[in-house]
Amino acid sequence: MSAPDLSRLSLNTATTKRWTLEEAVEGAVAAGIPALGLWRDRVAEAGLERAARIVREAGLRVSSLCRGGFLTAADDDGRRAALADNRAAIDEAAALGTRELVLVVGGLPAATGPNGPPSAGGDRDLVAARARVADRIAELSEHAAASDVRLVLEPLHPIFAADRAVLSTLRQCLDLAAPFAPETVGVVVDTYHVWWDPDLREQVARAGAEGRLASYQVCDWNLPIAADPLLSRGFPGDGFVDFATITGWVADAGYTGDVEVEIFNQEIWDAPGDSTLATVAARYAELVEPHLHR
Amino acid sequence: MSAPDLSRLSLNTATTKRWTLEEAVEGAVAAGIPALGLWRDRVAEAGLERAARIVREAGLRVSSLCRGGFLTAADDDGRRAALADNRAAIDEAAALGTRELVLVVGGLPAATGPNGPPSAGGDRDLVAARARVADRIAELSEHAAASDVRLVLEPLHPIFAADRAVLSTLRQCLDLAAPFAPETVGVVVDTYHVWWDPDLREQVARAGAEGRLASYQVCDWNLPIAADPLLSRGFPGDGFVDFATITGWVADAGYTGDVEVEIFNQEIWDAPGDSTLATVAARYAELVEPHLHR
Repeated sequence: MSAPDLSRLSLNTATTKRWTLEEAVEGAVAAGIPALGLWRDRVAEAGLERAARIVREAGLRVSSLCRGGFLTAADDDGRRAALADNRAAIDEAAALGTRELVLVVGGLPAATGPNGPPSAGGDRDLVAARARVADRIAELSEHAAASDVRLVLEPLHPIFAADRAVLSTLRQCLDLAAPFAPETVGVVVDTYHVWWDPDLREQVARAGAEGRLASYQVCDWNLPIAADPLLSRGFPGDGFVDFATITGWVADAGYTGDVEVEIFNQEIWDAPGDSTLATVAARYAELVEPHLHR
Repeated sequence: MSAPDLSRLSLNTATTKRWTLEEAVEGAVAAGIPALGLWRDRVAEAGLERAARIVREAGLRVSSLCRGGFLTAADDDGRRAALADNRAAIDEAAALGTRELVLVVGGLPAATGPNGPPSAGGDRDLVAARARVADRIAELSEHAAASDVRLVLEPLHPIFAADRAVLSTLRQCLDLAAPFAPETVGVVVDTYHVWWDPDLREQVARAGAEGRLASYQVCDWNLPIAADPLLSRGFPGDGFVDFATITGWVADAGYTGDVEVEIFNQEIWDAPGDSTLATVAARYAELVEPHLHR
């Protein structure tokens, strides 16, 4: 049996949450994984310049930086803080050598910030929150373009529409991206978030045709839903996503980039990282990689 | 202060799960609620003819019968059983004096039937499951038309796409309904399931223009999600749904029918039914009814 082709596999560092950046780099190299999707918290721990050097010296690509966003605040202070944080994230992406900055745009002001507990009451105007996201993407686009970094809009599963992201479908993200150059505003297809969408095939093709398909992230939709739905993601093959079909659509759309495995799952986080990487590589090789070639 | 206008309010019997049909009828009459949305289990307990008589003699309208569906089985036995059950549901709707039979179409064969536990493995072909739903709606349409009953397609929140309904958006349901007469195949707007949809305004308008808007059901999207997401529905006002906006869209679409309050929530089920109805009426009068007139 020939060795599995891992040449387009990228380990998103959220999958090995307990590893430092150094450990993730060593683990990826040992597992034959040639790229990393970096989260900003791991980068900040290591220090930006040092993080960039560690990854570069290990010969790894950076497939994306996760994440900017949280752009929905209705007040001026919230708006200014979000814009400043996203400009910093753009700079970090450039320093790390990736063009793709993934944005989770934030939920309703009535709900929560990135880490706060949900609570009802307050502003439930979803239409207005979405309009604010569009305005702030426009405000960030110039700095992104000047930095050669792309703002990558992530549609999140509608289960998160209240508290994490008012962008819920790929069509919506592409409509929002339309006024901007494809090198400046793109989209990511994360199977967990979009696998259910009856419009997915058409919108993946559209993303490819428009040159906006910036990232492909894979993990499964597990049931029952975890108590914290954010952590309900599984290894490909453990849930209900049809990876052959969706990966084929992504390939048909002309995507030739890295494929990130990004899993939030307490049980997986509690397991040894090397064992997690072995499963990631095996599932990718079995369920995803064969469908990347059309 | 004038009495609240409850003339278009309908109590869906799922909201008062512990009540028999007789208790629901008495409770609605006492609360000044002029209509019921009936579930088949409550009707079966009472007996079909008796149920129809009890409701009629109390002077209540039947706004809908919930529910048919579960049409996604991949095998012949499953297909035949589903068609037989749905023909029976059509006959029950006709006997109860409602034109609207709500359909929850079922999930992936890999996942679960209406009551079984979810499990991975098996058939994850979502595209094929959706095609089977379309085929079986066609098979049922003749009996529905002959019975003067409408098959009302319900888009369920994408959180249920694996295990309960492969129809996830109003657009998808309207596309599926398009080949049939609007009197034979319609759609329901349930705020819990569709509140997040960026395409909602346009598709509600389309449903109205096509004459397919068969039912409007209201309840809230509560956070955190309940351990069983089916039970995460709340009284209007307890969660994150913008009832003013969505109700206005439904009114703009020309909907003049009853508004069902349909809540699955263990805490509400455990409370006394009369107290639940008082809250239902108050929240409806405050948050929904004022927006029904455009």
